Amino acid sequence: VNNHTLNLEEIVENIQPPDQKIMKQAREHTSRLAIPPRALGMLHEMGERLCGITRSLNPVMDAKAVVVMAGDHGIVEEGVSAFPQEVTGEMVKNFLAGGAGINCLCRHVGARVIVVDMGMKADPQSLGLLTNDTFYAHKIAPGTANFAKGPAMNREQAKDAILYGFERASALFQEGVCLLGTGDMGIGNTTPSAAIGVVITNASVDEMTGRGTGVNDAGLQRKKTAIQKGIDINQPDPCDGLDILSKVGGFEIGGIVGCILAAAFHKKPVVIDGFISTAGALIAHALCPAASQYLFAGHCSEEPGHKTMLKYLGLEPILNLGLRLGEGTGGALAMNIIDASAKVFREILTFDQAGVSEKKS
Amino acid sequence: VNNHTLNLEEIVENIQPPDQKIMKQAREHTSRLAIPPRALGMLHEMGERLCGITRSLNPVMDAKAVVVMAGDHGIVEEGVSAFPQEVTGEMVKNFLAGGAGINCLCRHVGARVIVVDMGMKADPQSLGLLTNDTFYAHKIAPGTANFAKGPAMNREQAKDAILYGFERASALFQEGVCLLGTGDMGIGNTTPSAAIGVVITNASVDEMTGRGTGVNDAGLQRKKTAIQKGIDINQPDPCDGLDILSKVGGFEIGGIVGCILAAAFHKKPVVIDGFISTAGALIAHALCPAASQYLFAGHCSEEPGHKTMLKYLGLEPILNLGLRLGEGTGGALAMNIIDASAKVFREILTFDQAGVSEKKS
Repeated sequence: VNNHTLNLEEIVENIQPPDQKIMKQAREHTSRLAIPPRALGMLHEMGERLCGITRSLNPVMDAKAVVVMAGDHGIVEEGVSAFPQEVTGEMVKNFLAGGAGINCLCRHVGARVIVVDMGMKADPQSLGLLTNDTFYAHKIAPGTANFAKGPAMNREQAKDAILYGFERASALFQEGVCLLGTGDMGIGNTTPSAAIGVVITNASVDEMTGRGTGVNDAGLQRKKTAIQKGIDINQPDPCDGLDILSKVGGFEIGGIVGCILAAAFHKKPVVIDGFISTAGALIAHALCPAASQYLFAGHCSEEPGHKTMLKYLGLEPILNLGLRLGEGTGGALAMNIIDASAKVFREILTFDQAGVSEKKS
Repeated sequence: VNNHTLNLEEIVENIQPPDQKIMKQAREHTSRLAIPPRALGMLHEMGERLCGITRSLNPVMDAKAVVVMAGDHGIVEEGVSAFPQEVTGEMVKNFLAGGAGINCLCRHVGARVIVVDMGMKADPQSLGLLTNDTFYAHKIAPGTANFAKGPAMNREQAKDAILYGFERASALFQEGVCLLGTGDMGIGNTTPSAAIGVVITNASVDEMTGRGTGVNDAGLQRKKTAIQKGIDINQPDPCDGLDILSKVGGFEIGGIVGCILAAAFHKKPVVIDGFISTAGALIAHALCPAASQYLFAGHCSEEPGHKTMLKYLGLEPILNLGLRLGEGTGGALAMNIIDASAKVFREILTFDQAGVSEKKS
């Protein structure tokens, strides 16, 4: 399956943290703006981090793209989702027709939508979908195995998912994309995400597991049982990101991991969306802690474990609007705020330039 | 001074709450979208409220404008601000040159900036500023009187400020603006705003008073003392919005009140910014409770009393990014989210339209 230019070790070795010296220069610039000290709060921190990430005091965030990774999950056999599995393919079709939430919000913020079949059960051709520069097929398998009974995938498949995500995102950066968002589609995928959250943050299954698309009380119980069973049977090693991804993860989550590593590798910011993308970020952090410094947390999901994940990664969510759709929607909406933070940094005049009197001593 | 088409009573009498029947139809539409039930959280509530406000199931929020009301404050004599009073005029000049935070964020969200001299101390001509369709002069007086020693203005001036704000905003709506933001510039204006907050919400001076642009401990104490003195001397009537505005308010705050009433009168949404705009909203609510149903709270300010004000008005802030700049900046940034909520309502396909399977029973 694997035929990738770089291997995972080469990628990880070449990721450096954002440039602290440029971030210091950026903070000095902010202190000269004709506003009360740091009066635009988090927008300043975001803008300065964009400087450190891009190694530039002129951060520009115009060309945006969201990659929506799609995959199916054997774990749905355990009755963990409120929606039938065919919805994964149906929604991918909807994404390519432009009718979904992610399409609406990407049009709104001026972002391209790229969809990747990383391993959904449906055959794209039977859905009438052709691959093109908006839709890519890299079906590792038609859905993962049920991780309550054994590993979701093998280690080579996990590596393949990450490396394909890396290459897809790298191609976008090479085409000029300067701000990338990650999205997901996969019925049942809050279940592997919660399992990843439990293994990496050491939170309890109860704390990490929510209702996803809206499972009822009995389904929530089945979901918790399946997650605990999966962890007990597979014993994923909390220090080995690849082990966790292969044992309790998903193909689309692996693709998201690859996108995040690509952003860090290419010195570009990446906006993660909600619970599933953040599970990907946890894996990326396990593989390469420095990569998480390239992350922006688009929003805080309604999924209860999301806060714990974000806290573990040291990320402050940009938006908190009670979203729980996935697809990349929260990250897409937050791209507008990230773009604004770059403009605040670039465009507001200093006291000197504007001829405004400074604070009284 | 007064030569207005409508008087305040006529305006208030003609304000009706948003249309509940259309909002119910809007909620029914949302329930058919191909997403888990209400999975875009607050975006749905916002979009449905836009339907009720505009009396339409096709809310469009493209043409945006922010009105920045400028005025000076006699209360600065009491040493309540970290910045010298000449900054009000200097910043107005900066707004008209396009170099301030509000210019940057309005360009970003595609909103026009309109600046009004409601009563700043500086003479616009001596600053080299000409009135045009971006800058209007309606200087009621060169700053309010020091309200720690008596009323900030008389009742006729308060009415004039509101009616001029009403007419300015009405003109924008008649030109096609569909989403209005309110902004402010006035050194010292967190002091009258806190006084208004105390009188209307019944919170304590301690709870309602913050550091504004960054006053030090001694200045904060002077500010609290001045507010208490102003309330004790003037005894504003908590049930009479005009009395409160005239005794402890400001000309730019009156202008903001007028903008809010105009939005409600013309059935348009209005985004308030932070502490000063919300003080204006409290006065508008005191004059006409139904008007507050046309409000969107752009963000939660760092000014500590702002949460109390928003709670009093029953408003949930859209953004929470630690902003405390004023000028209308938080409201401007939130316009993008409001616009997104209208598109979410209009553009996401239903289960039927998208051919997506519904939730399992």
